Amino acid sequence: MRPSNRTPAQSRPVTITRQFTAHAEGSVLVEFGDTKVLCTASFEEGVPRFLKGQGQGWVTAEYGMLPRSTHSRMQREAARGKQSGRTQEIQRLIGRSLRAAVDMKLLGENTIVIDCDVIQADGGTRTAAITGACVALVDALNWARGKGILKTNPLKFLIAAVSVGIYKGEPICDLEYIEDSAAETDMNVVMTETGKIIEIQGTAEGEPFSHEELLSLLDLAKHGIREIVDTQKAALS
Amino acid sequence: MRPSNRTPAQSRPVTITRQFTAHAEGSVLVEFGDTKVLCTASFEEGVPRFLKGQGQGWVTAEYGMLPRSTHSRMQREAARGKQSGRTQEIQRLIGRSLRAAVDMKLLGENTIVIDCDVIQADGGTRTAAITGACVALVDALNWARGKGILKTNPLKFLIAAVSVGIYKGEPICDLEYIEDSAAETDMNVVMTETGKIIEIQGTAEGEPFSHEELLSLLDLAKHGIREIVDTQKAALS
Amino acid sequence: MRPSNRTPAQSRPVTITRQFTAHAEGSVLVEFGDTKVLCTASFEEGVPRFLKGQGQGWVTAEYGMLPRSTHSRMQREAARGKQSGRTQEIQRLIGRSLRAAVDMKLLGENTIVIDCDVIQADGGTRTAAITGACVALVDALNWARGKGILKTNPLKFLIAAVSVGIYKGEPICDLEYIEDSAAETDMNVVMTETGKIIEIQGTAEGEPFSHEELLSLLDLAKHGIREIVDTQKAALS
Amino acid sequence: MRPSNRTPAQSRPVTITRQFTAHAEGSVLVEFGDTKVLCTASFEEGVPRFLKGQGQGWVTAEYGMLPRSTHSRMQREAARGKQSGRTQEIQRLIGRSLRAAVDMKLLGENTIVIDCDVIQADGGTRTAAITGACVALVDALNWARGKGILKTNPLKFLIAAVSVGIYKGEPICDLEYIEDSAAETDMNVVMTETGKIIEIQGTAEGEPFSHEELLSLLDLAKHGIREIVDTQKAALS
Amino acid sequence: MRPSNRTPAQSRPVTITRQFTAHAEGSVLVEFGDTKVLCTASFEEGVPRFLKGQGQGWVTAEYGMLPRSTHSRMQREAARGKQSGRTQEIQRLIGRSLRAAVDMKLLGENTIVIDCDVIQADGGTRTAAITGACVALVDALNWARGKGILKTNPLKFLIAAVSVGIYKGEPICDLEYIEDSAAETDMNVVMTETGKIIEIQGTAEGEPFSHEELLSLLDLAKHGIREIVDTQKAALS
Amino acid sequence: MRPSNRTPAQSRPVTITRQFTAHAEGSVLVEFGDTKVLCTASFEEGVPRFLKGQGQGWVTAEYGMLPRSTHSRMQREAARGKQSGRTQEIQRLIGRSLRAAVDMKLLGENTIVIDCDVIQADGGTRTAAITGACVALVDALNWARGKGILKTNPLKFLIAAVSVGIYKGEPICDLEYIEDSAAETDMNVVMTETGKIIEIQGTAEGEPFSHEELLSLLDLAKHGIREIVDTQKAALS
Repeated sequence: MRPSNRTPAQSRPVTITRQFTAHAEGSVLVEFGDTKVLCTASFEEGVPRFLKGQGQGWVTAEYGMLPRSTHSRMQREAARGKQSGRTQEIQRLIGRSLRAAVDMKLLGENTIVIDCDVIQADGGTRTAAITGACVALVDALNWARGKGILKTNPLKFLIAAVSVGIYKGEPICDLEYIEDSAAETDMNVVMTETGKIIEIQGTAEGEPFSHEELLSLLDLAKHGIREIVDTQKAALS
Repeated sequence: MRPSNRTPAQSRPVTITRQFTAHAEGSVLVEFGDTKVLCTASFEEGVPRFLKGQGQGWVTAEYGMLPRSTHSRMQREAARGKQSGRTQEIQRLIGRSLRAAVDMKLLGENTIVIDCDVIQADGGTRTAAITGACVALVDALNWARGKGILKTNPLKFLIAAVSVGIYKGEPICDLEYIEDSAAETDMNVVMTETGKIIEIQGTAEGEPFSHEELLSLLDLAKHGIREIVDTQKAALS
Repeated sequence: MRPSNRTPAQSRPVTITRQFTAHAEGSVLVEFGDTKVLCTASFEEGVPRFLKGQGQGWVTAEYGMLPRSTHSRMQREAARGKQSGRTQEIQRLIGRSLRAAVDMKLLGENTIVIDCDVIQADGGTRTAAITGACVALVDALNWARGKGILKTNPLKFLIAAVSVGIYKGEPICDLEYIEDSAAETDMNVVMTETGKIIEIQGTAEGEPFSHEELLSLLDLAKHGIREIVDTQKAALS
Repeated sequence: MRPSNRTPAQSRPVTITRQFTAHAEGSVLVEFGDTKVLCTASFEEGVPRFLKGQGQGWVTAEYGMLPRSTHSRMQREAARGKQSGRTQEIQRLIGRSLRAAVDMKLLGENTIVIDCDVIQADGGTRTAAITGACVALVDALNWARGKGILKTNPLKFLIAAVSVGIYKGEPICDLEYIEDSAAETDMNVVMTETGKIIEIQGTAEGEPFSHEELLSLLDLAKHGIREIVDTQKAALS
Repeated sequence: MRPSNRTPAQSRPVTITRQFTAHAEGSVLVEFGDTKVLCTASFEEGVPRFLKGQGQGWVTAEYGMLPRSTHSRMQREAARGKQSGRTQEIQRLIGRSLRAAVDMKLLGENTIVIDCDVIQADGGTRTAAITGACVALVDALNWARGKGILKTNPLKFLIAAVSVGIYKGEPICDLEYIEDSAAETDMNVVMTETGKIIEIQGTAEGEPFSHEELLSLLDLAKHGIREIVDTQKAALS
Repeated sequence: MRPSNRTPAQSRPVTITRQFTAHAEGSVLVEFGDTKVLCTASFEEGVPRFLKGQGQGWVTAEYGMLPRSTHSRMQREAARGKQSGRTQEIQRLIGRSLRAAVDMKLLGENTIVIDCDVIQADGGTRTAAITGACVALVDALNWARGKGILKTNPLKFLIAAVSVGIYKGEPICDLEYIEDSAAETDMNVVMTETGKIIEIQGTAEGEPFSHEELLSLLDLAKHGIREIVDTQKAALS
């Protein structure tokens, strides 16, 4: 039995609030249960130096946790003077996933910077971040189309993400913190709105897992992401 | 005339939301108009090394801005690898002000870490931060009393802050961004609930200012802070 | 057709040279074709602070590339003053994978530090590193048993890794650099000697991939790793 | 009674030695009693990037303490790898104050960098630094006029600074270290040669202070600065 | 008697392996006994900013030790976030020595970056590095001539280096680690192939040394370097 | 002919002012002509961790240049966030040289930290620093003997240093900046008061130099240092 009484395949309630803050071209508060992440998309003209003059755009992401988004206070990375390996790993994952959703030629020589800042953490911050960031990205692209900066929509498809894992021997979907910290296996999956795979990262925290377990986890993820995409679409309509 | 049609002495609406996030012992979202700052107070046992064994506590603060809290995106300080001089100046001010409000002997060998993170900026982030942080501090102290960690209340008085300045030749209270960036003189004032001064920092951005102008600004600040303290008290009751 | 005329399932020749350098308790040069990585395992008494007094050990890894291990010179990370996100991501993967192979209780309060330094790069440096590091780990554990520091062998199983990917529309095994940089999908798989999964990281570099493609890639990985484990066993016997 | 037997309003002897070192366009050793600060002004063609092409100049300042300028040795900031919050706060104050004294249009696209390095510390290093830096600035501006780089004098007025505070319940002027470390209230005031206010920074180190105490402190500061400006003028004539 | 039974004037066997790795324009593994250093020379078009437009080239060097090249593991400088003073001292020595061997006008606006990475350390890593780097430099220059980038050979002469020192009261040549750590005096000498001095760095680790001892050490160095240059020439022919 | 009309063997006037600042146990301003370095010696109880419990002391040094000690302003190392390779090389040289002059057993578990800060630079800052630091060291040791912390004098001998070089083809002593920047060969020599060698660092900036030139330079250094030691002794008496 899960601590929250959810069924194995049941995700937490997902809430997507657009225009959460005023300045960003896209600004989304995404909630997966008690996990809350603010995702902003900033549309900037120009591209990083390594892309100049190639007629294509760039999408990149940064991730952070507010020091007291967690149960006990974490050291502020700005004060510590560097981002942790975990932070870098997560922001690389977010950026890579979103780049897969955008046609860089259609974006032209423009850059979209996604900032994902965790306001409150209860497991699954990276999958919530990807899910919310995609909606913020859509808003920023629409803003640019409204301004006439973009003629056509560079979005190839929506993407969303969910975590799955093996907890007390059973595959479950969308782990909250208490499940995550006790899981034997932990897997993050990013998919398109049509169920194709963008990214899969599975780790045996305890025991190695079998091919069959991997297939069960993938099934759970596919089902969970399908529902989350529905929530994205509802928020965007 | 002020851009917002406020009278010179009129502060923006101040909103204080307690228990904004779940994990911190004190968690407050403070809003001065469109300026929104999340202030958390973390109660931690023990004190920094320079205070060990002296039977007294410590209060310190950190400040940050989310990269897209501002009109155009600011570089993330964690990615840049250091906090700016402005950030350090502000967090030192917040910490110093709050320490003035706490009896360190009554706090015992415990530390309260205040984190002030700007979600959305429209001028006056440091004065909003001090105002919200004080409420978060009260909540953290009450938490510790509820837990039996503290026997008596170490709070000496409430503190609150407001910015005042000379804009188009006239002293005004609680500057928003568009006023702040055009002000000739900018002053931040921190006071106790009974109107005594904790901190005063006035700067001639344009022309030097006179003794009389300083007195007018102080009057505005005293009046503004009195109202803000009322809002703090209402939020806490 | 692959640039090297290999069949899709064919790995490059894998060579494992033990005792490559003199000082480390385990020192292995691993070669996957033209990719050459020096893996050393240092056995150190004691554990990091967060583990002290818990009666268990720790295994961690660091990764680096010599500046001219690559086609054009990369900036030296020591001179630049920080490790890149890619470096941190890789060394976290290596450490996590090796920890899965060791019974930390049997290791006692000892630490094994794995250093993987790329001498020459031609794709697959992280999978070569994991493969070589496992052999260096075995040597360091045996060294400690020979010294009487360990009574029993903490190794749970051998682990090895290989990269697979979709190149010109076809799933292939053990990508060299020219394939890797053109692959639509790239996946790194770490398995135990009995074919259970330790880690799977798949990324759609170009197009999203299907469930069926994932299964094909997993099959290739399982087959490739089985051969690599044979090479590990031969080197260790 | 003050440790030095000074009256409450009495500043320490102020000495200003111009051309203290050979290379800088302005080089001043300023002494407030036992506090000794070397202030150099470097005249450089060009402006920082954010000002390019706007036809105006820039003035900025840096501050440091020699490691053994203090009673016990302080860690060298260059060795530590960063400047403390206190250092940044002080150098921002010095730069801001001096910018108020210069007409940036008349300065043209030139930059003056002020370096204030404390040779020996006995309280009031920031106010001594501002006082000495102003004289070094005048020398650098005159150097540029002598070279024909500047046609007219960009100096708007002299500025000087002094610290005031409440010590053993009584307002006093120009605190030395022993007074400063015991003061209930500490205030730094920067004024023009005609007594207008450039900057005021008052802090309740112990008890909050009243409006009346603030006025007493301001009076002391005004009187003290008037004398210090006389010393500046004598040194410059 | 020396631990290795060498005579006082006897260097360790020196081995020079060219084309040790595939990508660099020059790549040399140099061995002085058990000291093994990989030296690569990277030929890059363009020069650092301070040399632009002057029609001359630049040669620079970087040095590092693999963490477990030493008896006990050293912290990785990339992880620590900075290069040690010792590292910087050595790489400055290597760069300076090699620049003395190259006619910068004939090199044109090109840069050669030398990377010296210690694979295994047993004393004398800096002198081995200089010796190997010179051969890698020659290979890179010949590569550029083969490509038609250089018309004439910018090499002025070969250079090589050896350490000498006073060990148990007697001057000896090419100290291994056990000798080096017990030596009273330690001196590194860099010479041209004709015996002229490029660099001499002598340090009294224990007792100060006399003029006569200096002369004996220089004699040993001259003799040792002559043999090492012969090995360089044999490797290059 | 030398720019200053000095004879080849003639050093600049050397001035040593003790007790230049108030707080340090030893505080010396040393001047070699227009080169002025402030050397302070701080006596601290305890030793660094690697020496604890061994019954011996430690001497270490740090070096810095004030930003405008030079003809054009140098970037402040504290602001830049790290010390340059040149700075580290010099402070290692100063520390090593002074350690040779002290009997660490007699010093007991105490540390002397030498800070050498260049107030004004005109060549030879490192040799002036060593010369002045030795006098500051003597004062700090005498202070400790006066306090009864040390029973016997740990000083083994005075040390002093001078630079020599080949300028326009002729060996000269104590190069000023204009000579130094044009010298073909540059050598720094540290000797004891009886003429034994502590450190010798010679570099061919232009052409390699011969054995005979080395001997001439050494002769000049020996003669120059003898005079400088006389100045030290006069200052100390």
